[in-house]
Amino acid sequence: MDQINFWIGMIATVAFAVTGVLAISDRGVDLFGVLVLGVITAIGGGTIRDMILDVPAFWSISQIYIWVALGACVLTFVAESFFTQPQIYRTMLYIDGLGAALFGIQGADKVWNLGFGLPVAPVILGVVTAIGGGLIRDVLAGRKTLLMSHELYAIPVTIGCTLYVLALNYLPQYTLEASVVCMLAIFGLRVAAIHWDLRVPKLFITNKR
Amino acid sequence: MDQINFWIGMIATVAFAVTGVLAISDRGVDLFGVLVLGVITAIGGGTIRDMILDVPAFWSISQIYIWVALGACVLTFVAESFFTQPQIYRTMLYIDGLGAALFGIQGADKVWNLGFGLPVAPVILGVVTAIGGGLIRDVLAGRKTLLMSHELYAIPVTIGCTLYVLALNYLPQYTLEASVVCMLAIFGLRVAAIHWDLRVPKLFITNKR
Amino acid sequence: MDQINFWIGMIATVAFAVTGVLAISDRGVDLFGVLVLGVITAIGGGTIRDMILDVPAFWSISQIYIWVALGACVLTFVAESFFTQPQIYRTMLYIDGLGAALFGIQGADKVWNLGFGLPVAPVILGVVTAIGGGLIRDVLAGRKTLLMSHELYAIPVTIGCTLYVLALNYLPQYTLEASVVCMLAIFGLRVAAIHWDLRVPKLFITNKR
Repeated sequence: MDQINFWIGMIATVAFAVTGVLAISDRGVDLFGVLVLGVITAIGGGTIRDMILDVPAFWSISQIYIWVALGACVLTFVAESFFTQPQIYRTMLYIDGLGAALFGIQGADKVWNLGFGLPVAPVILGVVTAIGGGLIRDVLAGRKTLLMSHELYAIPVTIGCTLYVLALNYLPQYTLEASVVCMLAIFGLRVAAIHWDLRVPKLFITNKR
Repeated sequence: MDQINFWIGMIATVAFAVTGVLAISDRGVDLFGVLVLGVITAIGGGTIRDMILDVPAFWSISQIYIWVALGACVLTFVAESFFTQPQIYRTMLYIDGLGAALFGIQGADKVWNLGFGLPVAPVILGVVTAIGGGLIRDVLAGRKTLLMSHELYAIPVTIGCTLYVLALNYLPQYTLEASVVCMLAIFGLRVAAIHWDLRVPKLFITNKR
Repeated sequence: MDQINFWIGMIATVAFAVTGVLAISDRGVDLFGVLVLGVITAIGGGTIRDMILDVPAFWSISQIYIWVALGACVLTFVAESFFTQPQIYRTMLYIDGLGAALFGIQGADKVWNLGFGLPVAPVILGVVTAIGGGLIRDVLAGRKTLLMSHELYAIPVTIGCTLYVLALNYLPQYTLEASVVCMLAIFGLRVAAIHWDLRVPKLFITNKR
């Protein structure tokens, strides 16, 4: 199980770094900026989570996350024209959705196991793990953040993390099953959102004045 | 006294969440963004303070702050047209000023009692407690931050926190009285600034080139 | 040696505060904003580093950094027209480069001595120490950040910190010499970049679409 988690984590890190770089590459960013912003996309959320938890940043223990993210950034920089092909880019978005699912549930799980701020903090920090890196990247790159975009990205993560925390609380004997189901729920909702280009319905948006 | 503090804290949390949401609602934000940005406005400053202090985030211990902020955000979303009435909005601004006064002095007090970086840190982190959440909200929402606005908001908080730290140092027997006086000083200055639309005089502003 | 480090640190703090204020003063910032953004420029990077390291913020122990930064901000505000003279401004840029060199190597050294996330974290957090404060300032002031600018600023720091970590690892008997050499390398590259207005070559920049 740890092995599976590790490999999905690696795939998610690559996907976050690649989509992180592609999100800003149209602005003419230099290789250094690409490395910094790509790595921040991949590890920023987990870093904020660990800072709030007062535990060492996860990448200070498993530096493989940094190396893999750096490698993915260089690759994306060099092969930008490959990754911006519509079909490839779309595939990366799906893998990015898988990454968000994994990082969200892994994050919630870590917070739960530390007994930190139960039951609210695991949900909040699960979402932070999944979207925090992208938020920092967008702020540093001067882009509109996810929070202003009406995309169905953070909402699936929030639903999944909430379900997972409910399961940890009420069905503690099914922790493993719950984590898989909740990841699949997040991933499924995200895939649907990408596939049908679903957005937050107007009813749930404040009036632009 | 703790009871009074608790209730003012609750009122302040509601006011910060409501004014936090209203500050961004004219940009067409979805309900998820409203919840995240409203809650960040209410608890973000205290969270940065606690991260710098290396103590657990206050809301991981008293989760009521999160629930109250979430409730206030939903209420503001649903009843947006109520809160944007000029008279109601102005009232919320006054309560927000009371919140800034309380959060600032409470923040300075927490830092002082931990003996952290005396005497400078209590003032700095008191101000961070009061304005940090709003700064993060504005950055994530792509708005101009308070620091660029010439508003008399952070300055009253800084004056109040400085006076409070001076009182803690030179008049330790009047801690309680000092906290009340300093809160009232912040609140009074803020009320005056709102009422007469006072801003930082030109003399204290750098030349726009 | 500690004495020399201390004095270079003070000079660097002054330079960071002065250039930090000058970077935003053309936007019409009030004195409070000048103080906050100038101090953040000077101590922000080290603060993020210490938060990630889970150690008390360096300025909570040596408050002199805050006082010196505040003094430099007030001075810059009052004597803005002096500092914006081309010749003086250029001199400040050189001193700022010296500051970046010192803060970067000092930061990497602190992380190394704590044995935190070796060998990657000392490089990453050395760079964060040198550029983090400027990034926060730019985000709060609504400016384009360094990461989007193609300036040769962070790259020299990264090279210097990497060389320093290599030296700490492979030539532990020459720690002192290595720190001086690496600081001079950063400073020299930065001086060259300012003097000849060097920027990241187009080859290393993504295509603007």
